[in-house]
Amino acid sequence: MIIIGEKLNSTLKSVFPALEARDTAAVTDLARRQADAGADYLDVNTGMLHEAEPETMAWLVQTVSEAVDLPLALDSPSPAALAAGLAVHRHGQPLINSITGETERCGGILPLIRQYHPSVIALCMDDEGMPETTAERCAIAERLIAMLTAEGLSLGEIFIDPLVRPVSTGSHYGTVAIETIRQVKDRYPEVHIACGLSNVSYGLPGRRAVNQAFLVAAMAAGMDGAIVDPLDDALMSLAFATEALLGRDPYCKKYIKRHRQKEKAAGADRSGA
Amino acid sequence: MIIIGEKLNSTLKSVFPALEARDTAAVTDLARRQADAGADYLDVNTGMLHEAEPETMAWLVQTVSEAVDLPLALDSPSPAALAAGLAVHRHGQPLINSITGETERCGGILPLIRQYHPSVIALCMDDEGMPETTAERCAIAERLIAMLTAEGLSLGEIFIDPLVRPVSTGSHYGTVAIETIRQVKDRYPEVHIACGLSNVSYGLPGRRAVNQAFLVAAMAAGMDGAIVDPLDDALMSLAFATEALLGRDPYCKKYIKRHRQKEKAAGADRSGA
Repeated sequence: MIIIGEKLNSTLKSVFPALEARDTAAVTDLARRQADAGADYLDVNTGMLHEAEPETMAWLVQTVSEAVDLPLALDSPSPAALAAGLAVHRHGQPLINSITGETERCGGILPLIRQYHPSVIALCMDDEGMPETTAERCAIAERLIAMLTAEGLSLGEIFIDPLVRPVSTGSHYGTVAIETIRQVKDRYPEVHIACGLSNVSYGLPGRRAVNQAFLVAAMAAGMDGAIVDPLDDALMSLAFATEALLGRDPYCKKYIKRHRQKEKAAGADRSGA
Repeated sequence: MIIIGEKLNSTLKSVFPALEARDTAAVTDLARRQADAGADYLDVNTGMLHEAEPETMAWLVQTVSEAVDLPLALDSPSPAALAAGLAVHRHGQPLINSITGETERCGGILPLIRQYHPSVIALCMDDEGMPETTAERCAIAERLIAMLTAEGLSLGEIFIDPLVRPVSTGSHYGTVAIETIRQVKDRYPEVHIACGLSNVSYGLPGRRAVNQAFLVAAMAAGMDGAIVDPLDDALMSLAFATEALLGRDPYCKKYIKRHRQKEKAAGADRSGA
């Protein structure tokens, strides 16, 4: 399971002031805690800084790269912000979050893909907007995969996000997302699937349980990546448990290792260490 | 989702003494709390009473039926215990938990099915033991369904339990169970699927997360019943959330209603009511 830590995001009220104030200590802390909790990538989003987005992105990428040696998911639809982040990205292959099938967005981002050869998250939407059915989403996924491989990316460098809509606005949206995942993964086993979780529960009370249910059901359908809060212990436990359940964690080794580390940390806490 | 409450079980250390001492108050309390938490059936198991099983089963069925008006899942392989329970069962159609494809077990239980026409949970095992593969499990499920319909049961009166083995003893056992559920439900949409959850996590630390993951993944594959603790709030929240996620709860009505009831109960607790 590829965990993309979502905490360094300017849309979070607790994070925005740290980005605006160039608070290196706060950013370093959030980066390290997510890395320690098992993140494989850290998402960095500076969209709420508006015209200061590119320079904030560059500062954020540099600051996070001083703190941890993880690759980053540069989270912006803006070519200028992505370019600023890609230019100073340091550890491994960066991940662009995200491209779509929209002509204008493609036009701005494809040159960066040619220049930097990042991995890419591609959202199942195009100039027609957000599609209603599984078939439409799969058709867009196919076109995106064809476009990105034509630019030289391998299948394993592509992450498809089926775009999850809230079940509060349509009872079928959960199964549409899950079926899209299953069909894309069946057709392209090497392509990764990465979703954000929280859209699905928008407008409902007690959203955590719905997000948790989506995580497990999407993983069972083939999702192998998720943009989540790695500091959410219940969610991370469920992700590791689901890997073990689905036979993707031989001898449940990773699951057991994580549990032991948690017990050790709890023991250290209790002894005041 | 058909919730079969599992708490009135003689194998539970906290319950056995109440059954042995014919503690009507304790049994009434456990029955009511499970009913209030949303159970559709209450499982009653008296196996640890050994030779006193039939008379204990009769007492337990009568005592629970005084407390709540739910149908009961009579949980025993013993024809004598099942007969004692069936004779005094009061509310709706009883559920036998369970029959298998084993010749001897069938020989004792089929006459009771003819006499009382209960619903039946059928486990995917036979005289050869517990099968290893999905194909073998599905073949046994087909034979059990054929046998029970030949005895006059409708498909909707049959619950198939795929028999979940611990993933700690074989990484494939989770997917074997999940695939069996999917294939049986695809072939017989009217047949119910009901599993116990806890076997899957046997031998692992932090078992709750594995049980939760199995609940969601099995529901996504078509499981529509579960033998669970209805007093486990996190698990029940996840079950209701999964129904909403999978489009089996139009407008998320049941999910929202349960959440409101919980909030109301929490409010009453806070105000000391």
